[in-house]
Amino acid sequence: MAVVHQSCPGYVAEPFASLVAEHPGEDVYPQADFRTEWGPIFHRGRLDGSARVLVLGQDPATHESVSRRILVGEAGQRVQGLLAKIGIDTAYVMVNVYLYSVFGQAAGNRHVTDEAITTYRNRWLDALLVDTDVTAVLALGDLAAKGYAAWAPTRPETASALHLAAVRHPTYAEGSARASGKPLAETTAAQLANWNAHLDALAAHVQPEGPTDLTPYAATWGPTDLVGIPEGDLPPGAPAWWRGVDAWAARSGADAQTKRATITVTVPRGARSWPPL
Amino acid sequence: MAVVHQSCPGYVAEPFASLVAEHPGEDVYPQADFRTEWGPIFHRGRLDGSARVLVLGQDPATHESVSRRILVGEAGQRVQGLLAKIGIDTAYVMVNVYLYSVFGQAAGNRHVTDEAITTYRNRWLDALLVDTDVTAVLALGDLAAKGYAAWAPTRPETASALHLAAVRHPTYAEGSARASGKPLAETTAAQLANWNAHLDALAAHVQPEGPTDLTPYAATWGPTDLVGIPEGDLPPGAPAWWRGVDAWAARSGADAQTKRATITVTVPRGARSWPPL
Repeated sequence: MAVVHQSCPGYVAEPFASLVAEHPGEDVYPQADFRTEWGPIFHRGRLDGSARVLVLGQDPATHESVSRRILVGEAGQRVQGLLAKIGIDTAYVMVNVYLYSVFGQAAGNRHVTDEAITTYRNRWLDALLVDTDVTAVLALGDLAAKGYAAWAPTRPETASALHLAAVRHPTYAEGSARASGKPLAETTAAQLANWNAHLDALAAHVQPEGPTDLTPYAATWGPTDLVGIPEGDLPPGAPAWWRGVDAWAARSGADAQTKRATITVTVPRGARSWPPL
Repeated sequence: MAVVHQSCPGYVAEPFASLVAEHPGEDVYPQADFRTEWGPIFHRGRLDGSARVLVLGQDPATHESVSRRILVGEAGQRVQGLLAKIGIDTAYVMVNVYLYSVFGQAAGNRHVTDEAITTYRNRWLDALLVDTDVTAVLALGDLAAKGYAAWAPTRPETASALHLAAVRHPTYAEGSARASGKPLAETTAAQLANWNAHLDALAAHVQPEGPTDLTPYAATWGPTDLVGIPEGDLPPGAPAWWRGVDAWAARSGADAQTKRATITVTVPRGARSWPPL
């Protein structure tokens, strides 16, 4: 029997069609601080009202710039694993604080409450949170928490009924190890302890769509903690390896200029299923 | 006033949603002859019934594998220029003979009448040609002409009412020069003479949506002969330089294995509008 493929239908329905058509550009996102040249990347997941959890991320990176959906790379797969623990396999929707990839973490910190950035982000949050079935918001990292905090007072009634789980960013461990010089094992353990601390309360505020498994994370990533991206989350025709755990996109170039201009896409070895060349 | 962006809405309406969901894979397109690992790429242009011309191309290449729409690179911009001459700016739809990028031109020649490939292609041609406003088919190159010939007898009534312009492939000049050793200037002149020979008849069978300019091509590409891809043809958020005339995607790698596995995406120099780094 023929395989039937799933794919993300995109932004045909309102208010998403208008949100996409009216996305802000360089006038709102300064090019010194954002890689606007790679285009805005809007979301991942359900826009049809079936979402029960909203995930608020930070900004898109290399894998996202090619797949045109957010949280597709390693960070996304860690989040997908967290959602799986609370029994959420597809009933989520994800947006980022920023439409464009941040150029330098410090740059990211500078703009989270910029008025025009916030106004546009809040239109998405209104569309996804006001009078919807979302009962919990999973905010990934400090910027996401700030982004949520810039929305909540504008919709106090909706916000008061939502559970907020403001957790460490999914790649906090790597960033923290780089910045502090601490061993990655230590920062990973700290991140997973943080996620564990939010797990039960998050589960208690979300109606699962499948089995839950609230076994806490160990001090290191286990083999089932990362979960691949569902086929239905990516645009039509997206290769299967775009959804897998092996990295496939990287910035490359010998100098800063070239590196900003270049993303190399490489089929992972495990997906090179063609006959010998 | 805020810019309002256009984008391709994708494949939400039937029969296109089902055609995309049911696309054939490696069982139909052998991996020895097709780069199935980059995923199927379906179309470019109007699926809403407003198309007046169907363009039948050959197979997607590097730019198409990233933008996820066909005929986006140089070949596509030459076609866009040809359509502009007959007064067609957006009222077209384009599909390829093959869903996947051909691995070697000889491989491409081998499969154009394969039963399962033809059956699936004919479902698209039925959807786009039977009881629609399309009055002319522009077939690009020999494979496209063969693909059309494999459909026409299945719908004789529809086909008899259509004008077929079977022209040289838009990058015939480059391929022919490489294969024959003839100067590119000579093969370019031959290609453009061939396009000129079809121009008036094609125009006569298409109701233009804007001004026509049937001035024949010169013996070489002129400055207005290539036309950029309209914003509304690419998926939401696609960077503007994906639609421009400067190349931005290339296969790279020191050996055949790596080259098959790699596409490097580079922002063209003219689009590097960020401040000095």
